[in-house]
Amino acid sequence: MKADIFCKPGSEEIAKDVASFLEEMGVTAEIKAEIPDSCDFIVTVGGDGTILRVLQKLKECPPIFGINTGKVGLLTHANPDNYKERLASAIERMEVEEFMRVDCIYKEETMTALNEVALLTSMPARLVEFTVFVNGAEIENLRSDGMLIATSVGSTAYALSTGGPVVDPRMECLLIVPVAPFKLGWKPWVVSSSREVEVEVRVRDCLAIADGHETLKIKAGERLLFKKSDYPARFFKMSNRISRIVEMLKSIK
Amino acid sequence: MKADIFCKPGSEEIAKDVASFLEEMGVTAEIKAEIPDSCDFIVTVGGDGTILRVLQKLKECPPIFGINTGKVGLLTHANPDNYKERLASAIERMEVEEFMRVDCIYKEETMTALNEVALLTSMPARLVEFTVFVNGAEIENLRSDGMLIATSVGSTAYALSTGGPVVDPRMECLLIVPVAPFKLGWKPWVVSSSREVEVEVRVRDCLAIADGHETLKIKAGERLLFKKSDYPARFFKMSNRISRIVEMLKSIK
Amino acid sequence: MKADIFCKPGSEEIAKDVASFLEEMGVTAEIKAEIPDSCDFIVTVGGDGTILRVLQKLKECPPIFGINTGKVGLLTHANPDNYKERLASAIERMEVEEFMRVDCIYKEETMTALNEVALLTSMPARLVEFTVFVNGAEIENLRSDGMLIATSVGSTAYALSTGGPVVDPRMECLLIVPVAPFKLGWKPWVVSSSREVEVEVRVRDCLAIADGHETLKIKAGERLLFKKSDYPARFFKMSNRISRIVEMLKSIK
Amino acid sequence: MKADIFCKPGSEEIAKDVASFLEEMGVTAEIKAEIPDSCDFIVTVGGDGTILRVLQKLKECPPIFGINTGKVGLLTHANPDNYKERLASAIERMEVEEFMRVDCIYKEETMTALNEVALLTSMPARLVEFTVFVNGAEIENLRSDGMLIATSVGSTAYALSTGGPVVDPRMECLLIVPVAPFKLGWKPWVVSSSREVEVEVRVRDCLAIADGHETLKIKAGERLLFKKSDYPARFFKMSNRISRIVEMLKSIK
Repeated sequence: MKADIFCKPGSEEIAKDVASFLEEMGVTAEIKAEIPDSCDFIVTVGGDGTILRVLQKLKECPPIFGINTGKVGLLTHANPDNYKERLASAIERMEVEEFMRVDCIYKEETMTALNEVALLTSMPARLVEFTVFVNGAEIENLRSDGMLIATSVGSTAYALSTGGPVVDPRMECLLIVPVAPFKLGWKPWVVSSSREVEVEVRVRDCLAIADGHETLKIKAGERLLFKKSDYPARFFKMSNRISRIVEMLKSIK
Repeated sequence: MKADIFCKPGSEEIAKDVASFLEEMGVTAEIKAEIPDSCDFIVTVGGDGTILRVLQKLKECPPIFGINTGKVGLLTHANPDNYKERLASAIERMEVEEFMRVDCIYKEETMTALNEVALLTSMPARLVEFTVFVNGAEIENLRSDGMLIATSVGSTAYALSTGGPVVDPRMECLLIVPVAPFKLGWKPWVVSSSREVEVEVRVRDCLAIADGHETLKIKAGERLLFKKSDYPARFFKMSNRISRIVEMLKSIK
Repeated sequence: MKADIFCKPGSEEIAKDVASFLEEMGVTAEIKAEIPDSCDFIVTVGGDGTILRVLQKLKECPPIFGINTGKVGLLTHANPDNYKERLASAIERMEVEEFMRVDCIYKEETMTALNEVALLTSMPARLVEFTVFVNGAEIENLRSDGMLIATSVGSTAYALSTGGPVVDPRMECLLIVPVAPFKLGWKPWVVSSSREVEVEVRVRDCLAIADGHETLKIKAGERLLFKKSDYPARFFKMSNRISRIVEMLKSIK
Repeated sequence: MKADIFCKPGSEEIAKDVASFLEEMGVTAEIKAEIPDSCDFIVTVGGDGTILRVLQKLKECPPIFGINTGKVGLLTHANPDNYKERLASAIERMEVEEFMRVDCIYKEETMTALNEVALLTSMPARLVEFTVFVNGAEIENLRSDGMLIATSVGSTAYALSTGGPVVDPRMECLLIVPVAPFKLGWKPWVVSSSREVEVEVRVRDCLAIADGHETLKIKAGERLLFKKSDYPARFFKMSNRISRIVEMLKSIK
């Protein structure tokens, strides 16, 4: 077996430990900085952000095992003190779970996000107008700082800040939540992943930011299409997702 | 074919028209007041409430066609002026869609709801304490006027009043939303219909009310179990569910 | 000087200690069960609820000193372990602060509340329709479980549960917040205490409950008037109201 | 009497009409582009934004009469079709009302806002950490897209978008409302104008934007002070402020 290791700056020592541990287990392990090769699984050392960065470079996704060196991580499996037993067990069982990602399609470009694509005004305090369509039916029109199209996994990321519900990661769906809408009577929507969501941008240009990182500039007057990605994120299985979410929510109270 | 007709008080004349129309189409039609017999389909004359009343008496559910005589109805298919063509077409096609219902199990009793089961304080202004578990994991503990366990169809009913999101009726899930919680930092939850939700009631007795009607008295200290019902509600197909929801939401702005 | 002592059931021993302590200080102290006589100040032993019960029997209000025997109390000054020094100091300084109360006038009856008057459906899960007027202008019309008219002090009581803001107790105002409104696009309102608020009740009867206790039955079709009471609540001064609120809010996270 | 007229680009023709009308009334009127001279009153032709722009250049504020050429304006008194009678009457009566403004003090700089000062991340999708103090007591610490310090008049502007209540313009207060906070359990606060609010900015630099326009760059690690301005905004009196707010709220449903 062959594993790629990715770490965030400052966690190189732990990454080396992980590499040694994997080699002892008979796994060929390499610490990578760039786009991953084909490999049997990935180990990240860092936080959820590190995993999101890796995922942005991947279509077909080998299973990921996350070692958390930061605050509460929802996507990580272990921390530097307890990873060995868990990682060994994960490799032995090779039980994998998949989480839907969302594609954001704009002209010829496609961005893929695990948490959300945020459409955000590029001029602080200046509103953008958004019209949102679900399978062609207009569900909302408003002016706001932004509009989020999130997944269930992303319901506890940016969408949590803007009035969205907590959604079970087992559910495949798209959350539609505005950011600071100058409008009364809007509601967060949770639509099936079998739907297509379109957003038309008006009044001024905005940015489309996938998982807080990859960015497209969107022209006023243009439309974006959002739909379930063909390429889910894949993780080594965790049994207690609900408890993990509860724990994370407590950490931000 | 055989059809049962149910109508709300005051809509008897329309019900008779419907019966005549069905007989003309070769359908044996009967206006019923009580628990429905086995029949091929049901026509209701009234509002969403009429449909909910009928459903409470049904486990196995023949497809329902709703003729709306009230305000905006999310579940109804037509109104007294335009039902003939639509009903004829529905009977001809016999395309049916199913919506998940939720079972509320308390001791030996089971109530089944299409919209929601509301756990509500029986003493206005006196709080009940609720602890909520999802697949055994405690997700919330708070004191409030009540706690709702709703379906996606119910997301635009009572749960809409208490901070829940709008959920695509295509999605099978359970919404968990408190009513007026004396707590900071709660969130509505949307969990997969593959989960079991348990609610423990503390401090004082409460009422469990299914779809605003059927009622159980719950003792403080007891637990209720909520899960996907084996018996979905069945309706003649409507193509434009999203647009209907948008229209309904506009009507309450 | 003469002091009346009120205690909640179960706190009688502490009340006797307080009486002894006051007598030592040269204050004539009496433990009361009923409507207070004229006295120079009041000591309560219990929680905020005990203070609210005492206030409901008082128009002209002598300054109150609260000894807290329960959870976090926003209105209390001390607990059984540390009250002596604080009470002695309070009596010596006799610095008093006043908090506005709200009058609820219905036909010939007037109820006065420190926290809020809650208009609540008397039938769980059945909506009441409320129309709200501020100085004669209609500001809201909706169907809901209830409608709260609260003071700034009450902003951290029931109104906190229903989406209201935290309001500085220094501000004299009326908060208007619905309970579980079946409506999109409502907002909590905070209006000056120089305004008069009227609420018209429709569709079904409701209850008007002052500070969770005193209750009037309101007929559908009738109106209630809310305005600043001529009789504020009076307390021995506390310097750190903002910190106390923050502490209380933390206790319900 | 002497009046200055300000208009937004595109409304010059109406401004000339206004000037003629004022001259007919014996008022010396001048259309200005820059910082106003001393004058007896000001007429603006445009929307609320035009009034906000004028106010930013004024400490001592002559009474303003607003002629609205845009959407619903909360601060304007008339529109191009009906201004003559209203303006004549306003000049005759010279009844003026004042609205509190808020000062934002950062190092040697002071910005004054009628609606709000928005502290906003300068990098879309990257959170800033804010700690908020009221008279020295820490009331909140969170990471968010921004933090608003608004007045009661501003409660129906940006603060409306972020979960704040509607506040009676008669009330002098400061609203404290975060923008998209990644935190559970926060509340909007409404504090007395006799309080001082301080905000400490952490993690990254942010922008302080007064009334959507005037901007300061704030360094991470620095503090800003907010307090009631000595220079209120002054307007010709309008009797029906509450109705105007209701009308505006309806326009954004």
